[in-house]
Amino acid sequence: MRAVVYNGPEDIDVTDVPEGPVGPGQVRLQVAFNGICGTDLHEYYAGPIFVPTEPHPLTGDSLPVVLGHEFSGTVTEVGGGVSTLAVGDRVTVLPVYSCGECLACKGGRPNVCAKVGFHGLSTDGGMAETTVVEASMAFKLPDSVSLELGALTEPMAVAYHAAKLGDPDPSGTALVFGAGPIGIGLWFALKGQGVDDVFVVEPSPVRRASIERLGAKTLDPTSVDVPAFIAEHTGGDGVTAAYDAAGVQASVETALACLGAARTMVSVAIYEKPLETSLIQLVLREARIQGTLCYTDEDYRAVLQLMAEGHYDTTGWVETIAMDDIVTEGFAALQAGQKMKVLVDPSR
Amino acid sequence: MRAVVYNGPEDIDVTDVPEGPVGPGQVRLQVAFNGICGTDLHEYYAGPIFVPTEPHPLTGDSLPVVLGHEFSGTVTEVGGGVSTLAVGDRVTVLPVYSCGECLACKGGRPNVCAKVGFHGLSTDGGMAETTVVEASMAFKLPDSVSLELGALTEPMAVAYHAAKLGDPDPSGTALVFGAGPIGIGLWFALKGQGVDDVFVVEPSPVRRASIERLGAKTLDPTSVDVPAFIAEHTGGDGVTAAYDAAGVQASVETALACLGAARTMVSVAIYEKPLETSLIQLVLREARIQGTLCYTDEDYRAVLQLMAEGHYDTTGWVETIAMDDIVTEGFAALQAGQKMKVLVDPSR
Repeated sequence: MRAVVYNGPEDIDVTDVPEGPVGPGQVRLQVAFNGICGTDLHEYYAGPIFVPTEPHPLTGDSLPVVLGHEFSGTVTEVGGGVSTLAVGDRVTVLPVYSCGECLACKGGRPNVCAKVGFHGLSTDGGMAETTVVEASMAFKLPDSVSLELGALTEPMAVAYHAAKLGDPDPSGTALVFGAGPIGIGLWFALKGQGVDDVFVVEPSPVRRASIERLGAKTLDPTSVDVPAFIAEHTGGDGVTAAYDAAGVQASVETALACLGAARTMVSVAIYEKPLETSLIQLVLREARIQGTLCYTDEDYRAVLQLMAEGHYDTTGWVETIAMDDIVTEGFAALQAGQKMKVLVDPSR
Repeated sequence: MRAVVYNGPEDIDVTDVPEGPVGPGQVRLQVAFNGICGTDLHEYYAGPIFVPTEPHPLTGDSLPVVLGHEFSGTVTEVGGGVSTLAVGDRVTVLPVYSCGECLACKGGRPNVCAKVGFHGLSTDGGMAETTVVEASMAFKLPDSVSLELGALTEPMAVAYHAAKLGDPDPSGTALVFGAGPIGIGLWFALKGQGVDDVFVVEPSPVRRASIERLGAKTLDPTSVDVPAFIAEHTGGDGVTAAYDAAGVQASVETALACLGAARTMVSVAIYEKPLETSLIQLVLREARIQGTLCYTDEDYRAVLQLMAEGHYDTTGWVETIAMDDIVTEGFAALQAGQKMKVLVDPSR
């Protein structure tokens, strides 16, 4: 089968690889769509970061690997002992491997397992015609959810999980920094969690226009004094949650300046270096900075439910490319900011 | 009466001032002891910071003010309508004024009231022979708690409140950075909250020796690789709570490196400037930095209960001076690191 094989930084082959066997408890999927994640970009341009160069403690695999951890597909083969899935089922996959034994796993937090691994980083993933996953990792798509939308479950679950950790007050105001795919996902998630008064702060006019078309209110930090605006808008109380999906000094600084007493700024960005952070602002208002990583089964179920209810809209920010175009139309276009979210169609 | 009047930076008078009237709902106290806080030091050397130069929105007072917000005393006069206190009662005071109307107050968080004020900063305080407070701010000392120990309720409540916000696991390990008065208070509070395995990280041999005499385990970060030690000590799981009562780059950095998955570093320090903070460490382990400010009634009651049970020990780190010696034996000695905690006795 054809697959996107990652060998190292800026070294990708779209080539034929053998299909793996389907073991007990596993299923083979014909992959429909596989999204390119910011993590994949980091691997392509600056990796290997998450891709292991030594055998991964849970998967046993290492470089080279088939990329792809955001995907949907159709079950084509069912391994022994699998009773929850049948050939023809349309599914999306929660691509996390966890040890089940560490303090985090025992505490119900497999997303921060000490040995955490990912399908498509720590072992071969979904940028391929087919892939084999544990049946327990597959979630059936509701009938009304397309395979295209289903492939977005993973990033939307990242954002949904992050939105929850901010503990926003539905009657208050929330602030999202960055209108990339995670910022968009945060906006959908906050709305889905009943928070109606959300502002998205984004300096790029293209990205602002894109999220405005989905219905969002935006602020341009190059022309608006965001803390002053929020102070007036909230009668001095500040926002009940802020989300940094931009990962830069200015977003963190502004978010902390807008935060209400005893409220949370959620960090859902890959910070490339330490930032000057005004911790005194946390102390004086008993506020917090909360990191967030991935999602749990519960987040997947919640996002799929919202998708089934027609809550998510891919208009204007998602496009599909052929697997052979992964570098030019995928990595390079995303890195240059020419595209927002790209799904790879392995059948093309 | 004699009082310590703050006029501005390095400008203090120990002088006679008139006693204020006792209004309805208020009581007059003969002050027994009043601690010098880090906040007082900041006011003396770099203020006015908390002391208002315009009338404070809740107290109506401004510079000059009588300092002192950590004190104990005996009731000498009771205002109209006060039924909870009588002349002769020994009390300590929770010195916070809150508006009762902002989002924080309505949410049960008067400590982060938008207009928060303090007895001894926003209005005349306890570094005086007498002071007048709302009866609702006074907490009776249990019989077994001395007036000297009672004057330490405020800083011990700061630490107790901070300890709680870290949500430490009693069966896990906690880490305290800094063995000053708040670090000592954190150690007492964690023990009081059932956390037995606590390490205090402190570079000063004098401060380490001081807290070791109270029974604490310490780590010298100049000779021990603290993250490596903690990783080995906790079997790789990290600490279940870390507390930064040092407020410097190295303490924040080391604390974050020692933190377990989904756990909390509590910031209980006055950070003088933004610090380079590795937010990616929060993201990858879904950890958080939690600011903490002051305390609530509940913390005062908890600390007084622990004090009554003999849980706190002032040996070796608390000393008393006369009011006239406030600058030389108080501010200057504390600033030079020659003393740890100083109580002013207004009768001397």
